[in-house]
Amino acid sequence: MHVAMNIWVTLLIVPLLYQTATSWNPCCSYPCQNGGFCLTMGLQEYVCDCTGTGYYGGQCEHVTFMQRLRRLLKPNPETLHHLLVNYKWLWSIINSVTFLSDSLMTFVYLLRSNAVDSPPLYTSAHEYITLEASYNLSYYARGLPAVPTDCPTPMGIKGKRVLPDPKIVVERLFKRTVFKPEPMHSSLLLAYFAQHFIHQFFKTDHQKGPGFQWGGHGVDVSHVYGKNKHVENLLRSFQDGKLKTQVLNNEEYPPYQADVPGVPMTWMGQVADNNKFALGHQFFGMMPGLFLYATIWMREHNRVCDELRRVHPEWDDERLFQTGKLIIQGETIKIVIEDYVQHLSNYHFLVTFKPELLHTEVFQYQNRIAAEFDHMYRWHPLMPDEFNISGVVYPIMEFIFKSDLVVKYGTKVFTDSLSRQIAGQMTARNHGFLTQSVALDTIENGRKLRFQPYNNYRKNLDFPHTKFSELTDDPEVAATLEELYGDIDGVEFYAGLLSEKRRENNMFGALVIEMGGPFSVKGLMSTPICSPRYWKPSTFGGDVGFNIVKTASLEKLFCKNIPGDECPLISFVVPPENIPSSEKCENCKNDEL
Amino acid sequence: MHVAMNIWVTLLIVPLLYQTATSWNPCCSYPCQNGGFCLTMGLQEYVCDCTGTGYYGGQCEHVTFMQRLRRLLKPNPETLHHLLVNYKWLWSIINSVTFLSDSLMTFVYLLRSNAVDSPPLYTSAHEYITLEASYNLSYYARGLPAVPTDCPTPMGIKGKRVLPDPKIVVERLFKRTVFKPEPMHSSLLLAYFAQHFIHQFFKTDHQKGPGFQWGGHGVDVSHVYGKNKHVENLLRSFQDGKLKTQVLNNEEYPPYQADVPGVPMTWMGQVADNNKFALGHQFFGMMPGLFLYATIWMREHNRVCDELRRVHPEWDDERLFQTGKLIIQGETIKIVIEDYVQHLSNYHFLVTFKPELLHTEVFQYQNRIAAEFDHMYRWHPLMPDEFNISGVVYPIMEFIFKSDLVVKYGTKVFTDSLSRQIAGQMTARNHGFLTQSVALDTIENGRKLRFQPYNNYRKNLDFPHTKFSELTDDPEVAATLEELYGDIDGVEFYAGLLSEKRRENNMFGALVIEMGGPFSVKGLMSTPICSPRYWKPSTFGGDVGFNIVKTASLEKLFCKNIPGDECPLISFVVPPENIPSSEKCENCKNDEL
Repeated sequence: MHVAMNIWVTLLIVPLLYQTATSWNPCCSYPCQNGGFCLTMGLQEYVCDCTGTGYYGGQCEHVTFMQRLRRLLKPNPETLHHLLVNYKWLWSIINSVTFLSDSLMTFVYLLRSNAVDSPPLYTSAHEYITLEASYNLSYYARGLPAVPTDCPTPMGIKGKRVLPDPKIVVERLFKRTVFKPEPMHSSLLLAYFAQHFIHQFFKTDHQKGPGFQWGGHGVDVSHVYGKNKHVENLLRSFQDGKLKTQVLNNEEYPPYQADVPGVPMTWMGQVADNNKFALGHQFFGMMPGLFLYATIWMREHNRVCDELRRVHPEWDDERLFQTGKLIIQGETIKIVIEDYVQHLSNYHFLVTFKPELLHTEVFQYQNRIAAEFDHMYRWHPLMPDEFNISGVVYPIMEFIFKSDLVVKYGTKVFTDSLSRQIAGQMTARNHGFLTQSVALDTIENGRKLRFQPYNNYRKNLDFPHTKFSELTDDPEVAATLEELYGDIDGVEFYAGLLSEKRRENNMFGALVIEMGGPFSVKGLMSTPICSPRYWKPSTFGGDVGFNIVKTASLEKLFCKNIPGDECPLISFVVPPENIPSSEKCENCKNDEL
Repeated sequence: MHVAMNIWVTLLIVPLLYQTATSWNPCCSYPCQNGGFCLTMGLQEYVCDCTGTGYYGGQCEHVTFMQRLRRLLKPNPETLHHLLVNYKWLWSIINSVTFLSDSLMTFVYLLRSNAVDSPPLYTSAHEYITLEASYNLSYYARGLPAVPTDCPTPMGIKGKRVLPDPKIVVERLFKRTVFKPEPMHSSLLLAYFAQHFIHQFFKTDHQKGPGFQWGGHGVDVSHVYGKNKHVENLLRSFQDGKLKTQVLNNEEYPPYQADVPGVPMTWMGQVADNNKFALGHQFFGMMPGLFLYATIWMREHNRVCDELRRVHPEWDDERLFQTGKLIIQGETIKIVIEDYVQHLSNYHFLVTFKPELLHTEVFQYQNRIAAEFDHMYRWHPLMPDEFNISGVVYPIMEFIFKSDLVVKYGTKVFTDSLSRQIAGQMTARNHGFLTQSVALDTIENGRKLRFQPYNNYRKNLDFPHTKFSELTDDPEVAATLEELYGDIDGVEFYAGLLSEKRRENNMFGALVIEMGGPFSVKGLMSTPICSPRYWKPSTFGGDVGFNIVKTASLEKLFCKNIPGDECPLISFVVPPENIPSSEKCENCKNDEL
């Protein structure tokens, strides 16, 4: 630390790599390594602030002794991933010894969450630290600061001086020619889970611009209860803590929008009134899969209120509602970690939701959604071009804005069908025609936000690429990237992310996991209910409520809220018998010992 | 923990103390000890949730082994205070050994801040944990939850069934008959420091009610830069990072409100245009002392921008402004801790601002202002009835809304005068006629907010009173309290707070210090700049800016921003020669070895 501080004051004159007539910001070349901050000192000089990085030297290039130790203990991302998705026998031992699995889970929580700045340092409005970043919640945070405005190329000093036309990027890198099935055989129930879950915190404020948002920056269950107290009050029945419902085809559904005036919903084109429901998220009328999740959570909230009322006949509507909401947040996180993240990671290690493991650790119970996280989570390739509901095939254009299909088939059949259809692969050239405009928008906004190049995000996590053939094992995609961007350090963020080769035994490329893991773990574990003074029985109304949280699962969520004696198939993985042979990925799970 | 959890499930039938026809909430008697949470189970039963308290048993009455150890290490509040305000020789040794003073300072930071729930648990709208408490920033938080609505008395089960008329409380407990000078000889410069500093975060939203607020919940320097970005933009010159100024009598002052339309300011009655300045806080036109501080901070911001521009000729207005603001926040906290808190505490131990001490500790970098903190900080008895500016005596009615007096006398003379006049004592029967309405409002709002009784706040800190004569050493005040409230556990919060006997070598009663300490330390050290990734040279523009923060002091703040070669007296303590013999407190500092 002291060494770093002393060396910090030494000014370094940056070598003039480009002898242009107009000078440029010396920080454009990202000269500071290992997380050091580049501070200009006059027009042509800079210093690297290495404070807290564990490195020192003019460019933070020398490692301190303590940091060297830390690096020895912190495995390489690729090695760690390989360990976690192989050696099943080893993991079955670790999983069965609480002490071992708890220690490893604590390590995972901390390793992931420490990669996120908390409180946040940057927004898209400034490429340096400001108080705005902390205090102005209307911004998305930033993982890495923006590229300075006065650089020779849009990516800094590397890559082309003019980026390729976004339309060409979409046409040549993103457009689906043939549907690529998800190689881990993930189901549409998984795809819709992702979509419904993330929309509670990815809420870009398009009016203000791509760097702004209008949400609560986390897992605040606003997708169930509405974006603010006003909408929440509209959705509440004010009876026994419950949300408003209606009965259609002998099942409980959310009310029609016409019956709850004032609940904001987004419709496009002509949508029939019997497809217009009043939901917690204004976007959830768009896809029947989202409407299914909205319906199930509404039923779960009301079921939980009944459970609470049984032990608390003395409680009023308000207390039943508020405590029910706390339980729903708890269930959400439990299911996201133990069903959803478990599936996405495909680790043999059983990931667990145990907030108490962090109670004695240095951990911040606050969260801010980063713009890069939002872009990284644009998983539109997961969407197929048609949907098979109980044997009837609906092209996507006959599926969107058709919430009524869930009512028609019933939640049981609909859930079963989504569990039996395979999602698309999250990779290059797999955006269906309907979502290509989103990909275009993502590229354009990434430029407006001046995202640092794709490879800087890998450098930041200590595993940069040196050539295109490392990025992807598809030679055609590699050649296209090289043609479009010229330099491995000149590839823009989303283009690199989508082109990455799939990681061993996994749905995604490495950067999606290594960036998404930290943002996800941080967002989930930093919710207030996980903090030491919230996480106790009385917060959830006593043991009954606390146990609902601690035993929640995807299967129970659906099963307890779908009428009938028998449950449908409720699965994030399509069973082998439902996968057409053309969509089977034979060589995908190579460790099933 | 396990013992506590097992015993937790045992239901306890509360003894029916009041055999009334209508039953009442068993939690009204606060049966759970040591911070346990009382949860009703049906109409007449309850359980205590002892999770995390270190206690177990049906009423959390039994101490665990670990907690017993912790208690041994945590000194009694009165003992600790006595140690800190005596034994000067011992402290001079501790202060001079960095290792010792840093260890003790870390202990103080943690002891204080751990007493504050973070994230917050309660608001005034619910007497149980809700997600609203965490997510809805429009609420003040609560130190203790509200008294349940269905209790036999307003304070729970103790005290009178009807509280005394608030006007009578003011008349008999708060009204000043004779001016009582502050026994530690604190100056008006101190009184105005308190007032200007706290107004950045005590911002009750009177339209919504006393449980709501419109601020940023912390030391966000909004009193310098305005309540939001709109006001900030109005106050900025957009030249070299600076704030707008005007020259009057050869000194720089904030602009007139007429010259900056749109800056919200609160005026009462007829105020002449040359008293109407545009300031960061809409209330700061009310008192010339507040206008003085507003002027000094504005000058300091602009001075800092000049310093920054010297080392950063390449920076634009925006970066100079944003970095200047970060430095001003840092200076504020440094001065608050090392000048202001040092004075208030009167400790011989030198309190220091060293954010790095918390970087490896379990500490939350977030803050929420509690309603009790707001009430506790109503220090209106500090205001005298008249003001002596350079020998001219102004009755308070000729002083309020007269910012022009600062311009007339100049900042030098004005600062000098405030440093030489003694403030009032924060005690019973010392509210001047102008502030008695605030005391009335405080009592009325404390009831609307259903604050728990004064003695519960002492119980919560482990030093309850058992009788009125312990609360105050003034027998008349004790008799009045007993007459008004009947029971030591029936005294309302602010009435108890103001009546408390003064602590040894201190300005205040014990509860002000023991409650204010935690809220203050937490609020100051949890600002973003104190967090590990902010606290480094580059955040403040490099070593120049970082050093401004690390060497800031009250004296430098004024001295560097007041024209002329010689500085005025800048002091929180009135020099002996300026204290009239009638106002001298001979027996106040009893340890000057």
